[in-house]
Amino acid sequence: MRNFEYWNPTRLFFGRGETDRVGQECRKYGERVLLAYGGGSIKKTGLYDRIVRCLQEAGCSVTELSGIQPNPRISKVREGVEICRKEKVDVVLAVGGGSVLDAAKIIAAGVLYEGDPWDFFTGKGTIKGKIPLGTVLTLAATGSEMNRNAVITNEETKEKLVIKNPHLFPDFSILDPENILTVPREHAVYGIVDMIAHVFEQYFHPVPETPLQDRLAESIMKTIIEYAPKALDNTADSHAWETIMWCSTLANNHLLEAGVSADWGTHRMELELSGVYDIPHGAGLAILFPQWMEYVLPLIPKKFAQFAERVWDIPRGNRSDEDLGKAGIERTRQWFREIGAPTRLREVGIGEERLEEMAERVAKRGPIGSVKVLTKEDILTIYRRSL
Amino acid sequence: MRNFEYWNPTRLFFGRGETDRVGQECRKYGERVLLAYGGGSIKKTGLYDRIVRCLQEAGCSVTELSGIQPNPRISKVREGVEICRKEKVDVVLAVGGGSVLDAAKIIAAGVLYEGDPWDFFTGKGTIKGKIPLGTVLTLAATGSEMNRNAVITNEETKEKLVIKNPHLFPDFSILDPENILTVPREHAVYGIVDMIAHVFEQYFHPVPETPLQDRLAESIMKTIIEYAPKALDNTADSHAWETIMWCSTLANNHLLEAGVSADWGTHRMELELSGVYDIPHGAGLAILFPQWMEYVLPLIPKKFAQFAERVWDIPRGNRSDEDLGKAGIERTRQWFREIGAPTRLREVGIGEERLEEMAERVAKRGPIGSVKVLTKEDILTIYRRSL
Repeated sequence: MRNFEYWNPTRLFFGRGETDRVGQECRKYGERVLLAYGGGSIKKTGLYDRIVRCLQEAGCSVTELSGIQPNPRISKVREGVEICRKEKVDVVLAVGGGSVLDAAKIIAAGVLYEGDPWDFFTGKGTIKGKIPLGTVLTLAATGSEMNRNAVITNEETKEKLVIKNPHLFPDFSILDPENILTVPREHAVYGIVDMIAHVFEQYFHPVPETPLQDRLAESIMKTIIEYAPKALDNTADSHAWETIMWCSTLANNHLLEAGVSADWGTHRMELELSGVYDIPHGAGLAILFPQWMEYVLPLIPKKFAQFAERVWDIPRGNRSDEDLGKAGIERTRQWFREIGAPTRLREVGIGEERLEEMAERVAKRGPIGSVKVLTKEDILTIYRRSL
Repeated sequence: MRNFEYWNPTRLFFGRGETDRVGQECRKYGERVLLAYGGGSIKKTGLYDRIVRCLQEAGCSVTELSGIQPNPRISKVREGVEICRKEKVDVVLAVGGGSVLDAAKIIAAGVLYEGDPWDFFTGKGTIKGKIPLGTVLTLAATGSEMNRNAVITNEETKEKLVIKNPHLFPDFSILDPENILTVPREHAVYGIVDMIAHVFEQYFHPVPETPLQDRLAESIMKTIIEYAPKALDNTADSHAWETIMWCSTLANNHLLEAGVSADWGTHRMELELSGVYDIPHGAGLAILFPQWMEYVLPLIPKKFAQFAERVWDIPRGNRSDEDLGKAGIERTRQWFREIGAPTRLREVGIGEERLEEMAERVAKRGPIGSVKVLTKEDILTIYRRSL
């Protein structure tokens, strides 16, 4: 185990009906609320009306920022920062999935920063604080509701970058499983791929003697594997969805990476893909992850064998660690197909054309990876095998 | 799953060598430090000198409160509160196990309360804040380092009571496995019983559909069962001890009870025992828990069967849930014996004499238990079967 610092101050309100707390919770931080949301699906489901009513009943005034898209853009963040300044917003309330939450995080931090918020991603500027931020989650996927990460795309430079900063923890998050029941199946699938991919990133690492971390990660993976099909097959099964929702939060709230050296290489390769091609993040992860696993399998065969045995219940027989690990990886790929995720770049319309350029850019931003530090050639090989 | 609120703002510094942060961390909260500790073992190990030096180098002045005993007493808390007021202490630093930490929590809260701190336990007064509190853990057991609980004994009334309050989270805790390597074996054994008992309390409950919580709890139990013998047999095995230490913190930091209805009945019965007889808390738990398990087995036989299969790897064969569950309970009792814990009241010198009086008092303070709300008769039966 490695030394670590763990701190996570986000307050969670979890369960059916918790949405109605949103007014009173926001009001603790101030009166003027920026309501940030996405493409308007929350208007169809009635969630928008419910939240606005709650806020007003609590004595809050509401300004809106709508139209935050998947792979959220820095231009939208800039727009949000301006509104906050103009309207003297006290608290940002993000209602949506990871994209809306991440944009809201950078808006809340950007308000207290004099320069351009893209500076946070290029290293030109540093986050030194944020105005209060609450969230109401409508898609279980990124874990943004309880972590210090944000991913934003610069549409001009086609860069999609992640930052981690302790100021980016939301002050509170409302996790009401009823709010995720209406998610379209495709989005739900990609959310599920994203959450299990977060566990992979923190489970496959080179640090020895992390038995508790291993078992916690295996717990989350096994639960996702058991409950995802139930949830996807019955979108009204709020018991299944609440379990998936809790898995998603714990999969990426820094608990699993305490004491290990998480890899995150596949995420970095995927951010480049979805930055350039605007494909869903979960689609890119389902395609790349099995390839990355096969690529690094010879470096940590024991861990992959453990994965096959404990997570997929594949009996060892008289197989070597590497052979057993390979069976676990194949089972993972098959499971992605079963739940309806792509496993080839061609399935999402991506060909050979820009792979080299992308590999070069990812490597340049490196070092990436902990199981293996990936060179441009490594990345290109993984991209090509994913075609 | 039940609705829940989760919030845990304690900052952890975990790993070998982290002790040396203590000065700089305290200094963030102020200059005048109350160093609270126990019987002086930290002087023998050199930890005391190391901490005082760190504090002084960081520019802190140190006042001391020593002699905090296991089953810490309210009189000692009162003494600490007075010192803090007289010396205008800015931050309390607890160096020790759960007893020292719990006393320090109530001291830090008591400073901001005008009445007697025992009021917090009787309900006569409420904790509305505390002065800053840091901890350096020297025994893995109670989880106090990252939770909002405190247990204090009133030596005049022979009451040992627990309170839970969000102000009782330490601001920071340093978990350095090197600080627990010198713990005498007996204390280490009782610490291990205590931590696994915390998991039992939150694992055996009547709420359906808590699959992730179940697996997380099973992860911690399996890791404790695997690593406790390694740690006890080789007290210098810092890899084993760091794992035990992390298990202990996660066993009782409110993560496992999110979404369930934890029982805590056995803890309540034990606090009465160790309040009256001053036996180690872990000893009382090892004696009472298997008896409580057998008593409530018929109410949640499926959960006990799952416990036997997943935690103890006992094959089902053609047994009923109840028979399989019984085998798991018997294995638990046997494991307590293997690591050197008592499993009978007579082994710690307790006879029939005061059982009825104690059962009456525990029941009166109730309701206790969630699997079964225990009446005086239930409690007395469990006490008697434990003789």
